[in-house]
Amino acid sequence: MIVEQGALVECVPNFSEGRRLDVLAALVEAIRSVPGVRLLSHSADPDHNRSVFTFVGAPEPLLEAAFRAARTAVERIDMEHHRGQHPRIGAVDVAPFVPIAGVSMEDCVRLAERMAERLWVELEVPVYLYGQAARCSERVRLSAVRRGQYEGLKETIGQVERFPDIGDPRLHPTAGAAAVGAREPLIAFNINLRGADLAVAKRIARAVRESSGGLVNLQAQGMWMDSRGLAQVSMNLLDYHSTPLYRAFELVRMEAERFGAVIASSEAIELLPLDAVLETFSYYLRLASFGREKVLEWRLLEEET
Amino acid sequence: MIVEQGALVECVPNFSEGRRLDVLAALVEAIRSVPGVRLLSHSADPDHNRSVFTFVGAPEPLLEAAFRAARTAVERIDMEHHRGQHPRIGAVDVAPFVPIAGVSMEDCVRLAERMAERLWVELEVPVYLYGQAARCSERVRLSAVRRGQYEGLKETIGQVERFPDIGDPRLHPTAGAAAVGAREPLIAFNINLRGADLAVAKRIARAVRESSGGLVNLQAQGMWMDSRGLAQVSMNLLDYHSTPLYRAFELVRMEAERFGAVIASSEAIELLPLDAVLETFSYYLRLASFGREKVLEWRLLEEET
Repeated sequence: MIVEQGALVECVPNFSEGRRLDVLAALVEAIRSVPGVRLLSHSADPDHNRSVFTFVGAPEPLLEAAFRAARTAVERIDMEHHRGQHPRIGAVDVAPFVPIAGVSMEDCVRLAERMAERLWVELEVPVYLYGQAARCSERVRLSAVRRGQYEGLKETIGQVERFPDIGDPRLHPTAGAAAVGAREPLIAFNINLRGADLAVAKRIARAVRESSGGLVNLQAQGMWMDSRGLAQVSMNLLDYHSTPLYRAFELVRMEAERFGAVIASSEAIELLPLDAVLETFSYYLRLASFGREKVLEWRLLEEET
Repeated sequence: MIVEQGALVECVPNFSEGRRLDVLAALVEAIRSVPGVRLLSHSADPDHNRSVFTFVGAPEPLLEAAFRAARTAVERIDMEHHRGQHPRIGAVDVAPFVPIAGVSMEDCVRLAERMAERLWVELEVPVYLYGQAARCSERVRLSAVRRGQYEGLKETIGQVERFPDIGDPRLHPTAGAAAVGAREPLIAFNINLRGADLAVAKRIARAVRESSGGLVNLQAQGMWMDSRGLAQVSMNLLDYHSTPLYRAFELVRMEAERFGAVIASSEAIELLPLDAVLETFSYYLRLASFGREKVLEWRLLEEET
C-alpha cells in the first residue's frame, strides 16, 4: 500500500453494547490508547443496545485502534445474553473502513482484509467481508450478511452459502461473527414516528428502501423503541450525493401519512458530511445552489491555509 | 482601542453599482490593494443595481480597504443617473463593521466613526451613523436613515431632523450621503415569488417584517425584478439566533399563499454563518439538536488545531 503523507482513514465500528457504561468506556479507552488516532465521536442507543464510534488516523495506527476496540468488545460482550432492536451477528457487529484523504478505496479494502485476518487468527471470530471488500456480489450488502442475525447464523453458518470469508464456519462462542468492509461515507439517520406501531414502522421502511420498491441507495428498517415508547425507521443512506437526505426524509413523511403517523423527531447517528447538510438546507429554502464557499466559517478557514 | 493578536473585523459595504463590470472590478481592486485584507465574497445584482463585498482583516488595514473602496465608489458612481430597485442614499450606500474575533462592538463603533470622518473630510460625503454606532435611537435602523432615498434626501437634508451625524447638511453632488455603522452579523436573504406582482410582494413584505406586524429582527421589502420577470421579498435578518432563517422563509410562504403566489427560488446574499445553516437544517429534519460538533469536517478541523 502506497500511503501519502497526511493519509487519513476513518473507521466506524458498531459494537453490540449500548447500555453498560463500563464497557463503553473500555471501548473508548481502547481506541484512544493508540497514539495518532483521533476519536471524533461516539454514541450509544439503549433500545438498539448498540454503540458506534467514529475515529480517524493514518492507516497503520487506525487499524491497530480498530483491532484493540474489537478485542475489547470480544472480551466484554456476550451475544448469548444480548438483546436489542437492531439486527446484529456479533459483538463486533460491523467495522467499515472509509477513505478520507490521501488513500484509495483499495487501500481500505486491504485494511479490511488485514483486520479480518487478525479477528480470526488472534480472537477466533469468523468474518464476512462486505461492501467494497466483498468477495462475491451476494455479500456487498450488509443486510444480506446479517440475515438471520446471531441466533439464525448459529444454525446456518455450516451451510456452504453462509461460510465466512475468513475463518472456519463456526461462531465464536460469545462474540459470534463480524462483518468487516470498506465503503464510501454514509449517513445513518433515524426517524421517530408518533402514531405508528412496529408493524407500521416496518411497512414504512419497506416502502422507502431500495430492496422493496423505494429509493436507491437507501436501507431502512422499522423498529420499536421501548425506552421512548415510539416506533422508528432506522436508515442508512449509502450515497447521499445521488440520494440526498431530504428525499429520504420526505418519503418517510409521505408514506407515514397513509397511516396517520407523523414524524416526531429525528437523530443523525454520528457525524454528517457538510455537503450533505448544505444539500438538504438548499432544498428546503429553494436555493439554486449553496455550497461550502457560501459558509462564512469555511471561507475564513480556506483563506488562512 | 486595545486589539488582540489575531483580531478580525468584517466589513460588508454595499455600493450603488450592480451592472458596470469595470466599476465592480475597480472596487475589488481597491479592497485587494491593502495587504492583510482578505476579500471573502462579492456579488452584484443588476435589478437592485447594487453590489456587496465581504472582506476581513485586522482593524487598521480593514479600515483602509473600506475607505479605498468607498473612494472608488465616490469617484465612479453618479447618483444623478442611478436607477435600481433597492433603496439607497448614495454611492457608498451603507458600510457596516462587524466584530468577528478578538474585537468588541465598541471597537467596531470606533472604526465606523473614523470611517465616517474620512468620508467627510477627504471625500466630502456626509454620513449617518447607524446600528450600534447610531447617536440617537431614530437612526439605529437603516430603513429610517434611508427614508426618501437619495432623491428625497436632496430635499430634506437641510431639515434639522435629517442633519447628518458627520459633515455639513448637503449631499455630495454625485455620491450623495452614506450610512456607516457597526452591527452583529446579519443574514441578507431574497425570496423570489411566482404569481405575485410588485403590489403583492410589498404586501407580503409588510406582513412579515417587524415594523408592520411581522417577526422581530426582520426587515423586508417587496421589489420587482425586471431582468427575471418576477417579484421578490428582499430581507435582512438582524438576529438569526433569535429569529432564524426558516421562520422568516416559512412566514413568507404562508403570507404568499393568500395571494396564490408561491416561492420560486431564493438567494443568500454573500455568506451565511454555519450556525444559521445548521439551525434551519435541524428545523426541517426535526432534529432535536444538531450543532457544528456533528459536522464531520468541523470535527476533523477542531482536532487538528
